[in-house]
Amino acid sequence: MNIIIYNEGIHDKQDWMKPIYPDGIHGAIKQAIKGEHNITVVTLDNITDITCELLADTDVMIWWGHAAHHLVPDEISTVVTEAVQKGMGFIALHSAHMSKPLRQLLGTSCTLKWRDDDSERIWVTAPAHPIAQGLPEYFELPEEEMYGEYFDIPKPDDVVFMGWFNGGEVFRSGVTFTRGLGKIFYFQPGHEAYPIYYNENIIKVINNAIAWAKPTARISGQDCPNYAPLGAVKA
Amino acid sequence: MNIIIYNEGIHDKQDWMKPIYPDGIHGAIKQAIKGEHNITVVTLDNITDITCELLADTDVMIWWGHAAHHLVPDEISTVVTEAVQKGMGFIALHSAHMSKPLRQLLGTSCTLKWRDDDSERIWVTAPAHPIAQGLPEYFELPEEEMYGEYFDIPKPDDVVFMGWFNGGEVFRSGVTFTRGLGKIFYFQPGHEAYPIYYNENIIKVINNAIAWAKPTARISGQDCPNYAPLGAVKA
Amino acid sequence: MNIIIYNEGIHDKQDWMKPIYPDGIHGAIKQAIKGEHNITVVTLDNITDITCELLADTDVMIWWGHAAHHLVPDEISTVVTEAVQKGMGFIALHSAHMSKPLRQLLGTSCTLKWRDDDSERIWVTAPAHPIAQGLPEYFELPEEEMYGEYFDIPKPDDVVFMGWFNGGEVFRSGVTFTRGLGKIFYFQPGHEAYPIYYNENIIKVINNAIAWAKPTARISGQDCPNYAPLGAVKA
Amino acid sequence: MNIIIYNEGIHDKQDWMKPIYPDGIHGAIKQAIKGEHNITVVTLDNITDITCELLADTDVMIWWGHAAHHLVPDEISTVVTEAVQKGMGFIALHSAHMSKPLRQLLGTSCTLKWRDDDSERIWVTAPAHPIAQGLPEYFELPEEEMYGEYFDIPKPDDVVFMGWFNGGEVFRSGVTFTRGLGKIFYFQPGHEAYPIYYNENIIKVINNAIAWAKPTARISGQDCPNYAPLGAVKA
Repeated sequence: MNIIIYNEGIHDKQDWMKPIYPDGIHGAIKQAIKGEHNITVVTLDNITDITCELLADTDVMIWWGHAAHHLVPDEISTVVTEAVQKGMGFIALHSAHMSKPLRQLLGTSCTLKWRDDDSERIWVTAPAHPIAQGLPEYFELPEEEMYGEYFDIPKPDDVVFMGWFNGGEVFRSGVTFTRGLGKIFYFQPGHEAYPIYYNENIIKVINNAIAWAKPTARISGQDCPNYAPLGAVKA
Repeated sequence: MNIIIYNEGIHDKQDWMKPIYPDGIHGAIKQAIKGEHNITVVTLDNITDITCELLADTDVMIWWGHAAHHLVPDEISTVVTEAVQKGMGFIALHSAHMSKPLRQLLGTSCTLKWRDDDSERIWVTAPAHPIAQGLPEYFELPEEEMYGEYFDIPKPDDVVFMGWFNGGEVFRSGVTFTRGLGKIFYFQPGHEAYPIYYNENIIKVINNAIAWAKPTARISGQDCPNYAPLGAVKA
Repeated sequence: MNIIIYNEGIHDKQDWMKPIYPDGIHGAIKQAIKGEHNITVVTLDNITDITCELLADTDVMIWWGHAAHHLVPDEISTVVTEAVQKGMGFIALHSAHMSKPLRQLLGTSCTLKWRDDDSERIWVTAPAHPIAQGLPEYFELPEEEMYGEYFDIPKPDDVVFMGWFNGGEVFRSGVTFTRGLGKIFYFQPGHEAYPIYYNENIIKVINNAIAWAKPTARISGQDCPNYAPLGAVKA
Repeated sequence: MNIIIYNEGIHDKQDWMKPIYPDGIHGAIKQAIKGEHNITVVTLDNITDITCELLADTDVMIWWGHAAHHLVPDEISTVVTEAVQKGMGFIALHSAHMSKPLRQLLGTSCTLKWRDDDSERIWVTAPAHPIAQGLPEYFELPEEEMYGEYFDIPKPDDVVFMGWFNGGEVFRSGVTFTRGLGKIFYFQPGHEAYPIYYNENIIKVINNAIAWAKPTARISGQDCPNYAPLGAVKA
């Protein structure tokens, strides 16, 4: 598969993050992906590398962003959105709930409640879903930012995970959507200050999600054809 | 209720349309709405009347557009989209499948097949839905433009109507969505060359849809609050 | 509206329950229903009063059961199921997740995790849903039995409420379904040992649910008609 | 995979059917399944071979029935239903919309309109769905029984196919559901009087459906465990 990991890479340059993610969040995610894949890493520094042509040949794109959503050019958000509609899988991680492409694909504000310094227990709520395969009925994240309901998203195709937070909140922590031919997975864990992407269950989810989001069909364009009448089926 | 009817009003100015819709499509829709409502009509000529303030006080907006989607300013599409997310009902008619606000709300291309000069039989496929109340199990439109699958929309909340066309195509002709607090109904019939908006079943659908799309709750803003921990529930 | 409250009424006869529900759970629920309605109470003692004829004239049925699911005759479960399919609203409370009619309507095992002596915080996760109207973003139940995921139900139409439990579990505490013309609401709170049905938010939910579950359309029979061809729509 | 084909095998014994399906409908379906699988054929004559033990080891069950739904013992319908809930895939063909297991799984009447001697055009309405892979945007069945809306089923997970009939009706011809861990596909074509199961597109759909319905997870039992509190996640 051809996979793109986009990480804005802002926090990653700061000293306090080095001990946690010495190679950046993108480095940790790249490390986490199993199997033989062609993985391209993009950060805000070279975001213009994300072109229509590159995406047309990409199976799955992973997106991590937090502090710099507004610095992503609208044009790039639009080519990502259109690539998803044409079949590319899209995995939005953590603060990417507010990323331009996800909001453009979902059509809602994607707002939620949040708080640093909490702990989360993630429950599987769709045990037959491919993204939940091989996971225990729940797993725990001793350190994770709280994201709480109401989470303003359209009705998901599936709610694969629900999160329980020590502080008293619940969250739809893993949700899927389809837009055109593209499969979308939003996954809540992944705050930059915690070593989430080394957790074996998180790694399993990401790999499951990549396999699930792989295109089953693709198109190269989208239009409204004027269509000649077919007439009755001939018996 | 406060209702806005937006009709771009392009075709309506041409002589050939006068015999069908002497007061424009907006005039016919206004005529079709039953009950005591405060109805505002907007066309492309005064589209800048659509402001955040006006929409905050609007219960349901009806949108008809075809030839001039690209002339609707992006800013206006965005204020409509945000008003829906905050609770305003939105009814998109016929060619409004390609309107900016609907596409912005749905996140898909909304493309489909089409052909002039066909006839449609509309079947009720969700008989318990409020929008289907009082309708027969099917009704016919002797003249209507064909819109055919694949219709590139997200999975609807409900498929209230399915269309059968003489030429051999099928279509999800009446579909509902929720975005934020706002209810959305897309309804396929309504080509400008046919007297669709005088049909008693069409009139019933539009009135049912207005009643259904009325806000059940509204918010004035959308943000991501930093939220203090609630802690355990005290027994 | 014509409303039936079915409560098996087993626990209610025991001395320990008298201080909590002196008139039985059915008495408390009857007390909680606002407005002018014709309310019939049925317990296991007179369960054979539940007939096809009675249900044909019933708008909404409320069902509370726990210890005596197996004592409900299959025939009565079937007439309730068919009445729902024909349009009657059905509200299943607490342990009614394992009641015969609900399982017959949903087609799943409806199993879950449980534990006495916990506390619950109930979050609104579908703020535009009629059942959530007038409720705060969350409310608390200092004493409630824990019901935990995985809850083996089909994908709900809407997840109106999600529960957070002190003990560490989450639950889809308020879920809706449609079967035929009938609207179904399952609501998790309501353990017999706690004064749940006096809580003002619970009372609001029950009244909202009754208004929502009221039939929008009804049929008297269900069959597969041999249907003559309609032919092309005449232009 | 271990696959069971159940065909009641009533019509198949009559002389008029021999030219169409010399080896019975089950024979044609068995022939249609590609790949190395362990396929067991069961008819009404040996229906008691369908046991809990056999199903526990079965990946996908295909069900064709029409004239003898009432002769299927309730106990067998129940073991099939429970096997699906525990993870077994279930593919219901044509008149199996009224089969006991499908109705038990869906909880609705599954009624519809019907008429012999029509022709159908089947449109793909979920092009990204695995069951639609490799199919054209539509395909035609010169001879097929008409099944028409309203089809009384719960809201499907996906409507993969919609049918257009010469006589003027529409139908949700291919629909998916999940019950517990089990995936369910109902597919409308397959009247006993027409050579449907030799059609290359039908064969493609059946093979796609088998691959899709293969269990992703399985359980051996279903119960409601009393669950000790987990407590707060330790940071």
